[in-house]
Amino acid sequence: MVRVGILGATGYTALELIKILLRHPEARITRLTSRQEGQPHVASAHPQLVGRVDLRLDDAEPGALIEDCDFVFSCLPHGASASAVKPLVDAGVTVVDLSADYRLRDLATYEAWYGEHHADGGRLGQVPYGLPELFADRIRGASLVANPGCYPTSAILAITPLLAMGFAEPDDLIVDSKSGVSGAGRTPKLMTHYPECNESICAYNIGRHRHTPEIDQIVQLAAGHSVQVVFTPHLIPMDRGILTTVYATPRSDASEDRILAGFREFYHGKPFVRVVEHLPGTKDSAHTNFCDLTVRVARGRVIVVSCLDNLIKGASGAAVQNFNILQGFPETMALL
Amino acid sequence: MVRVGILGATGYTALELIKILLRHPEARITRLTSRQEGQPHVASAHPQLVGRVDLRLDDAEPGALIEDCDFVFSCLPHGASASAVKPLVDAGVTVVDLSADYRLRDLATYEAWYGEHHADGGRLGQVPYGLPELFADRIRGASLVANPGCYPTSAILAITPLLAMGFAEPDDLIVDSKSGVSGAGRTPKLMTHYPECNESICAYNIGRHRHTPEIDQIVQLAAGHSVQVVFTPHLIPMDRGILTTVYATPRSDASEDRILAGFREFYHGKPFVRVVEHLPGTKDSAHTNFCDLTVRVARGRVIVVSCLDNLIKGASGAAVQNFNILQGFPETMALL
Amino acid sequence: MVRVGILGATGYTALELIKILLRHPEARITRLTSRQEGQPHVASAHPQLVGRVDLRLDDAEPGALIEDCDFVFSCLPHGASASAVKPLVDAGVTVVDLSADYRLRDLATYEAWYGEHHADGGRLGQVPYGLPELFADRIRGASLVANPGCYPTSAILAITPLLAMGFAEPDDLIVDSKSGVSGAGRTPKLMTHYPECNESICAYNIGRHRHTPEIDQIVQLAAGHSVQVVFTPHLIPMDRGILTTVYATPRSDASEDRILAGFREFYHGKPFVRVVEHLPGTKDSAHTNFCDLTVRVARGRVIVVSCLDNLIKGASGAAVQNFNILQGFPETMALL
Amino acid sequence: MVRVGILGATGYTALELIKILLRHPEARITRLTSRQEGQPHVASAHPQLVGRVDLRLDDAEPGALIEDCDFVFSCLPHGASASAVKPLVDAGVTVVDLSADYRLRDLATYEAWYGEHHADGGRLGQVPYGLPELFADRIRGASLVANPGCYPTSAILAITPLLAMGFAEPDDLIVDSKSGVSGAGRTPKLMTHYPECNESICAYNIGRHRHTPEIDQIVQLAAGHSVQVVFTPHLIPMDRGILTTVYATPRSDASEDRILAGFREFYHGKPFVRVVEHLPGTKDSAHTNFCDLTVRVARGRVIVVSCLDNLIKGASGAAVQNFNILQGFPETMALL
Repeated sequence: MVRVGILGATGYTALELIKILLRHPEARITRLTSRQEGQPHVASAHPQLVGRVDLRLDDAEPGALIEDCDFVFSCLPHGASASAVKPLVDAGVTVVDLSADYRLRDLATYEAWYGEHHADGGRLGQVPYGLPELFADRIRGASLVANPGCYPTSAILAITPLLAMGFAEPDDLIVDSKSGVSGAGRTPKLMTHYPECNESICAYNIGRHRHTPEIDQIVQLAAGHSVQVVFTPHLIPMDRGILTTVYATPRSDASEDRILAGFREFYHGKPFVRVVEHLPGTKDSAHTNFCDLTVRVARGRVIVVSCLDNLIKGASGAAVQNFNILQGFPETMALL
Repeated sequence: MVRVGILGATGYTALELIKILLRHPEARITRLTSRQEGQPHVASAHPQLVGRVDLRLDDAEPGALIEDCDFVFSCLPHGASASAVKPLVDAGVTVVDLSADYRLRDLATYEAWYGEHHADGGRLGQVPYGLPELFADRIRGASLVANPGCYPTSAILAITPLLAMGFAEPDDLIVDSKSGVSGAGRTPKLMTHYPECNESICAYNIGRHRHTPEIDQIVQLAAGHSVQVVFTPHLIPMDRGILTTVYATPRSDASEDRILAGFREFYHGKPFVRVVEHLPGTKDSAHTNFCDLTVRVARGRVIVVSCLDNLIKGASGAAVQNFNILQGFPETMALL
Repeated sequence: MVRVGILGATGYTALELIKILLRHPEARITRLTSRQEGQPHVASAHPQLVGRVDLRLDDAEPGALIEDCDFVFSCLPHGASASAVKPLVDAGVTVVDLSADYRLRDLATYEAWYGEHHADGGRLGQVPYGLPELFADRIRGASLVANPGCYPTSAILAITPLLAMGFAEPDDLIVDSKSGVSGAGRTPKLMTHYPECNESICAYNIGRHRHTPEIDQIVQLAAGHSVQVVFTPHLIPMDRGILTTVYATPRSDASEDRILAGFREFYHGKPFVRVVEHLPGTKDSAHTNFCDLTVRVARGRVIVVSCLDNLIKGASGAAVQNFNILQGFPETMALL
Repeated sequence: MVRVGILGATGYTALELIKILLRHPEARITRLTSRQEGQPHVASAHPQLVGRVDLRLDDAEPGALIEDCDFVFSCLPHGASASAVKPLVDAGVTVVDLSADYRLRDLATYEAWYGEHHADGGRLGQVPYGLPELFADRIRGASLVANPGCYPTSAILAITPLLAMGFAEPDDLIVDSKSGVSGAGRTPKLMTHYPECNESICAYNIGRHRHTPEIDQIVQLAAGHSVQVVFTPHLIPMDRGILTTVYATPRSDASEDRILAGFREFYHGKPFVRVVEHLPGTKDSAHTNFCDLTVRVARGRVIVVSCLDNLIKGASGAAVQNFNILQGFPETMALL
């Protein structure tokens, strides 16, 4: 039984992570941390957990975590996460970091997009990007895994086969993403105040969203050279789910049927990617670890639609998938 | 043309008030106040108003308001409102106060339920309760009107004919109300953070909601003696609208048809109350100043259902209805 | 491994049932029936199930079901369900019927409220009501169980301790329920067309809803004599969840604390009822088999609030709970 | 006072049209048609209209309409609309057709995309496209105006200045649109059944949506040659509103500031287009006749975001705008 700690346990990704781990036959949660005062019971932050888990939220010192945990998930915000993760990894605890802190391989890119010093910048470049469909081999055996962002997962799973299998040009990629509101986190703000974002759609952070370099970085591995995707996120009035619509220029012989067949081949044996013929809705994969993909060719463009649950396949489900790979458990354990 | 000022112009009721007044042929908005720094344009707080009104939000002194306004609506929170309203009324400006500060006639009740000192307590008891369907005669000629709360309007319009026409017992009233989220105001809080209240219903403040004594106070006028209603508000995942379900014990000869006929008679000539036979939904009156009412008798109970838009008939529409009465304009001006 | 068939597999309760059973270590789905032509794959009706289950929807004859299934869940509508269930039970297949057909013990009451002939009326009165928190002993060993309605579950779990423990009078019960839209089923109708019911609340079927006699029937067991509850259902713009607010007249010495303590005692050892101190929201129990309950006493009334997921604890979760009891598995298997 | 008839009065666009016309000082509704039997009162189809208008829905013969109406709006579906509109226009009644029947100038294109014979094909090519921001001169004096589709309005207002002012290449246009559910009409279907489309996003009709040739047709006027836009509509869980994100390749010297300034110049004097600097949400223009536009340049692409209310600026508001132009009233009458 792996003893598991979760840092930053009051947010939405932590809640989903706890719920998945409660169904995991090989994991036992031993520590939940938060900066909240008075060590409240976790169910006071998450009433869904009443009767499910009997742990308090404490502001644990690294020493206590190292003592009580074999494995730690960090759900802390970027910046704070690297500071908390570094001593754990140094002490031999295996960590999946759900923040953005270890995703970018280049320190300067991190500092440019995140606007702050990195507390553990020396590790960048050595940490595998935790998208198991592409990097399971690198994840296996790692001591620290950078869990991907929700938008990047939806974009990268849609784009990579296009480029890796030569179906599309790499230099002309448009990523139009639509996300439910839980992606914005649990801290109340005007933008996510119910009467503001309900019954409304908006685009935000066009050209400036921090997931942009993360998408670039992985996409260019398939492209073979540096690329710059155009990424436009939109906020949609629903709790969870991301639908990403990717537009690319197909190479001459890439028909819809051939690309769909290529996608099926590319994701053969990947249990959490479903290549479908119909146009999927985000509800089809809500509350699951699946990413649904389909392809259309129309008017000289190839259009890939991908759907996933931003809190599960886009965060905590992927984190447990990484946990399973790291610990040698079946990849789907607790995730179906 | 009446020169109108609005205090506390950044919230939802102020926004609706501005939109109604922009359609009002006899009103011109001259002042919008707020504590925001830098005197931003009102459209920076309310993007709906881009191109509609060219005014800045300023932290106006009473003197400036007295100079520039014939009429003031206060959309300030309770407590702050009385402090701001007092000097205006003293100086002869007519005011409709949308806060709770002047609704209760008894100072001790105010202090008990609102837990604070009243800045203008001496006026309590002299200010008409601005529900025109019941108190138009007292409103006419007043210098200050207390605009009713949203829940109380929905409850009082449902209950008063029951009691005034002798259809039901006054001592056994249950008011189960369901409200959209805009009723909670525009300040971001965890309870009204989108992913918290979306796809969820909860009851809140059972037995402790501050609208309770306001309902009691008006209902007992029809009852002829002191009453204590049981009032349970619920938060519903939608922007606007209140549906109130009232349960009462009918007197022996009160059939559904007789009560419905009585309601029609009671509200005859009241342009904003619609007594209907079908069960209304809140969408029927959304974005309007109507209150829809119907009645059922089942299993020894009379059940009244009332629907209204909490921001219009429950706040800003009623305020303009009061404005029209106070200024001698047709009651429906700008409201249909 | 129990071989399980599901009748009427295209609706929402069947979908939830399939998803739960796919996690059940002791159940294997062998048959899914539907009247749809052409035996489509179940995933064509439920895209959530792509890659999860490889079965076609067929219009199976009883003989085929008897041959292939040890256990059958019927998700058929009332009327159709009794016709389909009768030959299965006669042949020794154990059945949990999720329709209303076997819930009422009295044939005349069934015919009066459902307005049709009962295809298996002789069995009424012998079939246990499948609410395990109250009737586990009768469920154990039965060959047919009547799974409760969603509203009745939320009302009965709230009311029964009040009466059984003498906290409240039985003759004055008001049940004000609020339900998400999935409770209305999957057949498109104007009332549940998105732009009609979104952003709106309405009451419906006041005094006429068919769950009324079902609530009466169980509540009067605790009351010790015939009762008639006043039941008002409301439609709420959300997918799933029921919040029921029960109003009763407390007996003289019943304080809030005493009643809460009584509820805790009453439900001690019942794994799916959580008696909480805070006011629960339906989101706390969404996608779970929990029913959350709390109690308030205010102004001479005791108010019980209950929350559950209408598709899980109000339907398919309870059905699997019954399955577990009937098969001798742990009650919580596949349900946590 | 213009006597106005509305054909097909039971849908959402007709409801919005009636509500706008009830505020119009120069219009009086004299006829509302529908195929519903028994000539029900219009409020039985639209409970919002109780007490607002006293007309029955009748299946009026052309003769009756010609007799009673100076002006007719057709809210009939395509196909049915041309059949009903033809005799009215032939008889000299001025008509705004909200269906797609007269939008395309080329009969073969109509038949290819709509798959049916056109009942009045001879008129195609002579009917002005009723987008007043571009074609007010042609609308003025017409006897029949083709009211634009909702998606095309949002796309065309975003694209036309880009091309007309030389800011972008015309051969590379991607139109990614997100619409609320009311755009799908009022007939219940599974796709728009509340529990299906709530809490979900999907793309639909990629490359096949009938608004595609309508966008092409107007965009190529600005391009100066034939163009084929890539148009991807998405269904969003909200009642009303369209946000369209347009991607184009900018010409070399087109900076964000220059394009924004160009847009302001292009729409100078157009009362219903608001060029803003912030990223608009659909809520900003909901329930209004405004279209909000802004521009971003990022990573070698120009991105235009447009927002409007699909039922108002995308349908009935635009229809009244055309009515005002046709009748010589101020363009904004009843629309602010």
